[in-house]
Amino acid sequence: MANVNIKPLGDRVLVHPLEEKEVKKGGIIIPDTAKEKPQEGEVVALGTGKRDEDGKLVEFTVKKGDKVLISKYGGTEVKIDGESYLIMREDDILGIIG
Amino acid sequence: MANVNIKPLGDRVLVHPLEEKEVKKGGIIIPDTAKEKPQEGEVVALGTGKRDEDGKLVEFTVKKGDKVLISKYGGTEVKIDGESYLIMREDDILGIIG
Amino acid sequence: MANVNIKPLGDRVLVHPLEEKEVKKGGIIIPDTAKEKPQEGEVVALGTGKRDEDGKLVEFTVKKGDKVLISKYGGTEVKIDGESYLIMREDDILGIIG
Amino acid sequence: MANVNIKPLGDRVLVHPLEEKEVKKGGIIIPDTAKEKPQEGEVVALGTGKRDEDGKLVEFTVKKGDKVLISKYGGTEVKIDGESYLIMREDDILGIIG
Amino acid sequence: MANVNIKPLGDRVLVHPLEEKEVKKGGIIIPDTAKEKPQEGEVVALGTGKRDEDGKLVEFTVKKGDKVLISKYGGTEVKIDGESYLIMREDDILGIIG
Amino acid sequence: MANVNIKPLGDRVLVHPLEEKEVKKGGIIIPDTAKEKPQEGEVVALGTGKRDEDGKLVEFTVKKGDKVLISKYGGTEVKIDGESYLIMREDDILGIIG
Amino acid sequence: MANVNIKPLGDRVLVHPLEEKEVKKGGIIIPDTAKEKPQEGEVVALGTGKRDEDGKLVEFTVKKGDKVLISKYGGTEVKIDGESYLIMREDDILGIIG
Repeated sequence: MANVNIKPLGDRVLVHPLEEKEVKKGGIIIPDTAKEKPQEGEVVALGTGKRDEDGKLVEFTVKKGDKVLISKYGGTEVKIDGESYLIMREDDILGIIG
Repeated sequence: MANVNIKPLGDRVLVHPLEEKEVKKGGIIIPDTAKEKPQEGEVVALGTGKRDEDGKLVEFTVKKGDKVLISKYGGTEVKIDGESYLIMREDDILGIIG
Repeated sequence: MANVNIKPLGDRVLVHPLEEKEVKKGGIIIPDTAKEKPQEGEVVALGTGKRDEDGKLVEFTVKKGDKVLISKYGGTEVKIDGESYLIMREDDILGIIG
Repeated sequence: MANVNIKPLGDRVLVHPLEEKEVKKGGIIIPDTAKEKPQEGEVVALGTGKRDEDGKLVEFTVKKGDKVLISKYGGTEVKIDGESYLIMREDDILGIIG
Repeated sequence: MANVNIKPLGDRVLVHPLEEKEVKKGGIIIPDTAKEKPQEGEVVALGTGKRDEDGKLVEFTVKKGDKVLISKYGGTEVKIDGESYLIMREDDILGIIG
Repeated sequence: MANVNIKPLGDRVLVHPLEEKEVKKGGIIIPDTAKEKPQEGEVVALGTGKRDEDGKLVEFTVKKGDKVLISKYGGTEVKIDGESYLIMREDDILGIIG
Repeated sequence: MANVNIKPLGDRVLVHPLEEKEVKKGGIIIPDTAKEKPQEGEVVALGTGKRDEDGKLVEFTVKKGDKVLISKYGGTEVKIDGESYLIMREDDILGIIG
């Protein structure tokens, strides 16, 4: 995964969605019927910092390189050097795969 | 219940919905009429951690293997190795069976 | 009231709605016109625990066996061994009868 | 006002709406045009207890027997021994008369 | 301004709207076009008490007899002895005139 | 700017919108297309007092006489001695000009 | 980037959107299909001050001159000396580029 020159703001993360054929055996296949149509992706960059209610910095739960399950409607789509990415709040990530 | 290679994020849990015929005697039968059509399922994996308002980690109330009553519209549907699962916030679980 | 093998989650309670003819003299009769059509019922099981804003466990106000007045649209309907029950947040109970 | 065998839950109160002809001289007459069509009533029973944000019990402002001005759309209608009552949150009471 | 026998509840106040012709020179004239069509009025009674987030009693900012600018859609209309009044939250008052 | 005999309530301010031709060189011109069609104006009066979450009085950021950029849909329109003013929450002011 | 004579209020910032052709190699190209159609821009001015829940001033994460990724629908459009700018809350900025 090439380094991308964008630092998401606050509690956001940058995710590179994986094409369905890129999904390995034991991967997650998401039924088209599912209203929210979740997708697999890889975390490419963490935000500038997540804060709790008192403004204290809090660790991200996901790490760069994690394979994650995301709900495609939770993020904003951006293209960097022709590749498609999603910027989303960490809390919108459904789960970590593997 | 085979181990599934996904760790729900935060206060979410992974639930494997049970087909109605799998429901044992004394099981919960949910009337089709019920607007929210709750369903029985089994907790397959707990999230990375539930936090209270101050950001302190809080124990999950349900455990892996618990039979639970869930409202089908509360979660996001995902298929893993051909099996259907739901990822949902623990608070959307209606009750623990048994 | 037979014991039911379901433990509502969190601040929810399990209520067995009473048929209108089961309502004793001095019972509450609810006008059909009432938009929310409240109903009488009996508390069958208390939830795993109600918490205040700081996450501290707080006593339920109702007890098992209490006759209560409920707004039918506040809960989720489930059938257990052929009997109809409602799972609802304690706060949606209108009052305790008797 | 006969005693009624229902104890509203939490910060709710039970109010017996007064028919408009029961309204004494200097009473409040509510214009039909008023969208919310407030009404006069009498407080018949106080709830099990009002709590502030920290869960501490707080005194009710109204007392049993108080004549009050209520917005009819704020409560749930119930009939007890043929009489019509409203169960509503204390905060939905507009004012105390007299 | 005759005394009125109603005590608004909580942070509400009772306001007697002034007819537009009653508005003195230098008064506030409200353009019909204004969506919210604010109006002039006089504060007739203060509520039983305004509380801050911690439940502590807080002084009202307006006083009985103050001329105020109100948004007509913020209150509930009541008629007392043939006169029209508005019951509204103090926070819905736009300003104090004079 | 003549003194106006109205004291906005709480965290509100009174703003006198400037006609577009009154806008000096280097002024802000707002494209008609802009959905919210911001406008220039002058702060004429500050409210009775802004409070933070704990009810403590907090300084206004703008001062009387400041030229400001406002979103016309954020306030309530009033006419005083034939002049048009807007009453709005300080937080709805977009920026201070100059 | 010429100095602009406007100081955004509170936690807002002033951003000068970059025309798509101004985007350097490795810049972010935003697919037209993207519902929110994010855009590149440059931070021109920081607000008067961002406060946390307790009213304490908190540092901005972005700096004047930062290249940022913004969601065009998050701000209010203003024209200054013929140039188009956006006033938006810092939290609506998606990320910092470079």
